[in-house]
Amino acid sequence: MGRRSDAREKMLLSAVGLFRRHGIDGTSIGDVIADADAPRGSIYHHFPGGKTQLAEEATRRAGAVMGGAIAHSLAFDGPAATLRLLVEQFRNELRNSDFESGCPIGAAALEGGGTPAARLAAGESFTAWEADIAASLWRAGLPMDRAEAMATTAVAAVEGAIMLGRAQRSTRALDRVETQLIELVEALTAES
Amino acid sequence: MGRRSDAREKMLLSAVGLFRRHGIDGTSIGDVIADADAPRGSIYHHFPGGKTQLAEEATRRAGAVMGGAIAHSLAFDGPAATLRLLVEQFRNELRNSDFESGCPIGAAALEGGGTPAARLAAGESFTAWEADIAASLWRAGLPMDRAEAMATTAVAAVEGAIMLGRAQRSTRALDRVETQLIELVEALTAES
Repeated sequence: MGRRSDAREKMLLSAVGLFRRHGIDGTSIGDVIADADAPRGSIYHHFPGGKTQLAEEATRRAGAVMGGAIAHSLAFDGPAATLRLLVEQFRNELRNSDFESGCPIGAAALEGGGTPAARLAAGESFTAWEADIAASLWRAGLPMDRAEAMATTAVAAVEGAIMLGRAQRSTRALDRVETQLIELVEALTAES
Repeated sequence: MGRRSDAREKMLLSAVGLFRRHGIDGTSIGDVIADADAPRGSIYHHFPGGKTQLAEEATRRAGAVMGGAIAHSLAFDGPAATLRLLVEQFRNELRNSDFESGCPIGAAALEGGGTPAARLAAGESFTAWEADIAASLWRAGLPMDRAEAMATTAVAAVEGAIMLGRAQRSTRALDRVETQLIELVEALTAES
C-alpha cells in the first residue's frame, strides 16, 4: 500500500478536478499525468483500462463523496439546509474558478459515447441523491410521489443552474434557484 | 445565394445535431463535413474561423430557434403550456435518439475552454429564455422577483433533467420535473 495507493489516489483526484473544468472528452491521459505529477506509464499500471477506467472510477468517487455529504446533511440538518449547502458549495466552486469549474457528475452525464461507463456512473449517482432527498422529504411528511417529484426537481435545478452559471459567468441562476427551491421545500414541509 | 448558402445552412444544422449528441469537444470538423456531405475545404470557405466560428454560430442558431418557439408558445398558450411543450420536445429527443441526443445549448455551456464564444452564446440564449418566461409570469400577475426566480428555476430544472435523463437512460427526471414545475406555476399564477 503506502506510496503506491497514494499515487493512485492522486490521479483520481486530478482526474475529478480536470473533468470539472474541461469535461472527460476535453481531458487527456497526458493532462492527468501532468496534473498528478505522476511518472508516465504509471497511469496504466494503476488503471489498466486506461482513460475509460479512470473516468468511470473518478465519476463514481466524486458521486460517492457528494452523496455522502448530502446524506450527512439530510440526517442532521434536513432537506432545506441541505439544498442551501449544495448550492453554496457549487457557488463557491464557480466563483473560485472564474466560472470554469462545475460539477464532475454533470460533466460525465453530458459526455459523448466515448465513456459510457462514466455516464452510467453519473446516472447512478444522480439516482442515489434523488432517493436520499426524497426519503428525507417523506420523513418530513410529504407523500412519496410528491417527495420524489420535489427531490428530482431540486437535483435537476441545481445541476442546470451550474450549467447556466458557467455559460453566463454568474452565480445568478444558483441564487435564484436557491430562493425558489428553499421557499418551495419549506412550504411543502410546513403544509404536510 | 442559392447552392452556396444551402451548403452553409446544411453544415450549421449538421453541427447542431452532432453537438447535441457528442458535445463540441467530442465533434471534429471532419465529423461535420461527413455528416453534411460537404466537400472537404468548403467548411473553411463558409466558416473562415473554423470550428470556433462554426460552434458559435451553431449555438446561436439553435438558441434562437428554441427561443423563438418559447416566445411564440408563451404569447399564445401561456407559461404552463410552454413548459409542458419544452419538456415534451426534449423527452421526444431523448427517446428518439436512445438517450444520446440532448440540448445543444447545454452542451455548449459545459464545454471546456476550447470554444469560449460558443459558451458565451449559450449563456445569452439561456438569459433570453429566462427573461421571456419571467415576463410571461409577470404578465400573469407575479411580482417580478418571484417571476424571475421561477423562470430561472424552470429553465435550470429542464436543462438539468435532460442531463439526468441522458445519464439514467430514462425520461423519469423530465416527467417529475414537469409535474413539479406545472403544479408550481399553476399555484403561483392562481394565487396572484
